[in-house]
Amino acid sequence: MDTRVKPTVVKLGGSVITAKEKAFTPNIPSINRLAKEIAEARLDSVILIHGGGSFGHPVAREYQIVEGYKTPGQRIGFSKTRQVMMALNKLVIDSFIRQNLPVVAVQPSACTTTKGGRIQHFDVTAIQHLLRLGFIPVLYGDATLDLELGFTILSGDQIAAELATIFNAEKMVIAVDVDGLFTDDPKSNPNAKLINEISLKELNGLLDSIDEAKTVDVTKGMQGKITELIPAVERGIQIDIVNASIAGRLYKTLKGEKVTGTKITRG
Amino acid sequence: MDTRVKPTVVKLGGSVITAKEKAFTPNIPSINRLAKEIAEARLDSVILIHGGGSFGHPVAREYQIVEGYKTPGQRIGFSKTRQVMMALNKLVIDSFIRQNLPVVAVQPSACTTTKGGRIQHFDVTAIQHLLRLGFIPVLYGDATLDLELGFTILSGDQIAAELATIFNAEKMVIAVDVDGLFTDDPKSNPNAKLINEISLKELNGLLDSIDEAKTVDVTKGMQGKITELIPAVERGIQIDIVNASIAGRLYKTLKGEKVTGTKITRG
Repeated sequence: MDTRVKPTVVKLGGSVITAKEKAFTPNIPSINRLAKEIAEARLDSVILIHGGGSFGHPVAREYQIVEGYKTPGQRIGFSKTRQVMMALNKLVIDSFIRQNLPVVAVQPSACTTTKGGRIQHFDVTAIQHLLRLGFIPVLYGDATLDLELGFTILSGDQIAAELATIFNAEKMVIAVDVDGLFTDDPKSNPNAKLINEISLKELNGLLDSIDEAKTVDVTKGMQGKITELIPAVERGIQIDIVNASIAGRLYKTLKGEKVTGTKITRG
Repeated sequence: MDTRVKPTVVKLGGSVITAKEKAFTPNIPSINRLAKEIAEARLDSVILIHGGGSFGHPVAREYQIVEGYKTPGQRIGFSKTRQVMMALNKLVIDSFIRQNLPVVAVQPSACTTTKGGRIQHFDVTAIQHLLRLGFIPVLYGDATLDLELGFTILSGDQIAAELATIFNAEKMVIAVDVDGLFTDDPKSNPNAKLINEISLKELNGLLDSIDEAKTVDVTKGMQGKITELIPAVERGIQIDIVNASIAGRLYKTLKGEKVTGTKITRG
């Protein structure tokens, strides 16, 4: 395996690998299909990250993990949050192994520490070695230790942007359950248009105007997602947001084919 | 949680948490009982490590993981070995959570690298923070990246000795399915006697004489285990080997009560 090959960072949103509205319910057919699309794309080097969807979020919310350590009663909630994320991760890994992909889970909380919710320490030694040997490291949003908060939630999006930056990724592919960024919320405004391509400068302009005019679709946590991803774009790494709940779109994006979605470039 | 409290390192052997002779078969009643004994001991600070038993070993052997990376065909075996160890770990964690113990899995391979099978790099940042917040970090024997071999197997015993040393443990409790070290193999020699206490010097003498006279019981991988643990004893950390397949023995050992077993001291 050529170590100079730039990895493609693929983030599978929680919405495409779980039934988001039903707690602890994986979307196995979708996970299997995405595993197949990634296998068929035959990329030289991949880092995979997935979200928590209906596994991580309900437990983390119940015990207010993102807010940090306040009472000893939260400790068992932290344990449980870690545990459900590993349960979901196991299902993802099982599915990818069935596609004969050499995926290897790397528990984010074992090698990262955050400070005020931002990655402060990331030991990527294992990931580096895995990439060199041709493995696909798989990470996920996790409950992690935090220097200020005690503990908190580290999102898969932040991990994706950080690893894309560290390993100078070829590009980042963000697989979600919507077509991409819109000029307005497509559910309330039938005139909302999908943004096919946008530069960082244009995007920042849109984000600044959100509070006043809501000129960009910020539903489904898209604004938070974009904010997490921007640092990687600033380093020159292109982002493709793609609707992975529609068969074939992830595959085509990975192959560099033209597909419905939003491309974010440094411009 | 007082950060100056010395943690007790507890290693649960694969033989007491799985049905060793039946592949991928956990010993759930035993895991549950051990979780209860540890909960009832109410220790201030614990690091837990468990072995692979009938989960890790069959897969690791099939793909010759311990020998290192030789062919791309081994990669999927490495993936599978990691996966079965996480499956076993999940069962252990589930059981301990049911005892309301704030256990948190820390994937060893995400924060360690070995060189020729020996730990070369161990990022203990997460473990340190977990102990400070009163959590019980749980690690396990794992398939890990190796600077010389590509990958290999890192034993739970080596992890236990390393963490006991790093965190200056109160003591190490090694839970196995035999009573301890014997003067000879108790299965073939009815005159074999259990060694209640032995100093490092005496132990080294016995180990040196093994090849000629087999004067110490080296069945069940006990010799390899002892060799892994000795570095911690050299640093002054006492080891209690105890038969955890007999109810109450682990509990009593944790409470410092007198119990059948072998104590190894620096002397």
